[in-house]
Amino acid sequence: MKGIILTNPKKVCIPLPEWLQNNQVDLAFSPGDMEDAMRLAITLSRHNVDHETGGPFAALVVNLSKGIVISAGVNCVEAQSCSSAHAEIMALSLAQQALGTWNLRVTPHAPLTLISSCEPCAMCLGAIPWAGVSQVICGATKNDAEAAGFDEGERPSSWEHGLKERGIELVTGILRAEASAVLVDYAKAGQTIYNP
Amino acid sequence: MKGIILTNPKKVCIPLPEWLQNNQVDLAFSPGDMEDAMRLAITLSRHNVDHETGGPFAALVVNLSKGIVISAGVNCVEAQSCSSAHAEIMALSLAQQALGTWNLRVTPHAPLTLISSCEPCAMCLGAIPWAGVSQVICGATKNDAEAAGFDEGERPSSWEHGLKERGIELVTGILRAEASAVLVDYAKAGQTIYNP
Repeated sequence: MKGIILTNPKKVCIPLPEWLQNNQVDLAFSPGDMEDAMRLAITLSRHNVDHETGGPFAALVVNLSKGIVISAGVNCVEAQSCSSAHAEIMALSLAQQALGTWNLRVTPHAPLTLISSCEPCAMCLGAIPWAGVSQVICGATKNDAEAAGFDEGERPSSWEHGLKERGIELVTGILRAEASAVLVDYAKAGQTIYNP
Repeated sequence: MKGIILTNPKKVCIPLPEWLQNNQVDLAFSPGDMEDAMRLAITLSRHNVDHETGGPFAALVVNLSKGIVISAGVNCVEAQSCSSAHAEIMALSLAQQALGTWNLRVTPHAPLTLISSCEPCAMCLGAIPWAGVSQVICGATKNDAEAAGFDEGERPSSWEHGLKERGIELVTGILRAEASAVLVDYAKAGQTIYNP
């Protein structure tokens, strides 16, 4: 006896929240200004909370020195019923599909930087080497996220070294206080901190 | 001076290959039969290679004891320009969107099992605890994948224990020879082993 096929979904589709699709936030930042790019990511993370469209996380793929924004992503886990729709995965996937390659190192806009309002969880950390970004810049740290009640998963103990060995530069703690304030405010407001 | 917004992609969209959408493979397996479920995953991984639609990896989300298939995913990285479109992420995301929840533990079909033709890379390993599956069953091992030339990334040294602590059972090496043969054949045929 064979079993049954309950559903047969044919594609994964994850739209961004409407406020982000409709350009309600100016996505420009000052070329070469790491803090200004992080300020933009933090602004997006706060918008995602204020619009109740997802968790307090946002990420961008940019050419930092030229001030070019390739993509902007926010956490879409609950809204889109997809546990992997973290901000970093969204930003990386959006950039790759927009540029027509899974490898961001080969685009004419390289080198590209992932700007994330918070350090990556275990999944997003694992995703970074596959994506072709040359640099990762984070705001809030893992400790900040965990202090606010979020689960970041098990990262290898030498994760910063692991990125470096793959030619990916890591900078963390940029505008840390502003970035972690969004996490704390979200938790204080009693919004969902999901964890199966 | 502010920089520029080069593209403004609005959604991530990852369709499955047409051969999988069009039910060219019978997705049924015998209820309770772990090997039969793995045989199905291996068959899908080989189809993905034969149709030249992606890497030699496939995964399923199933209720193992009842023989219910919720979703089937294959590696879509190159075809869909998305480095996170690994088979496991596809299968988990497809199942979640089909069932309308990011948390597979809360569906009436739980407990659910992720069947993967190969042990998860660092990204997919990190994704598993967020998805709500109760069990992970793998075919080929990390060593098999690396021997064939694939990069699995840095997993925490205690990854099996890490899953167990989160209430997720891991079984690996099921039909290992058949599963790893697909990886070896893919590599021998000189098909892309991508790595930025």
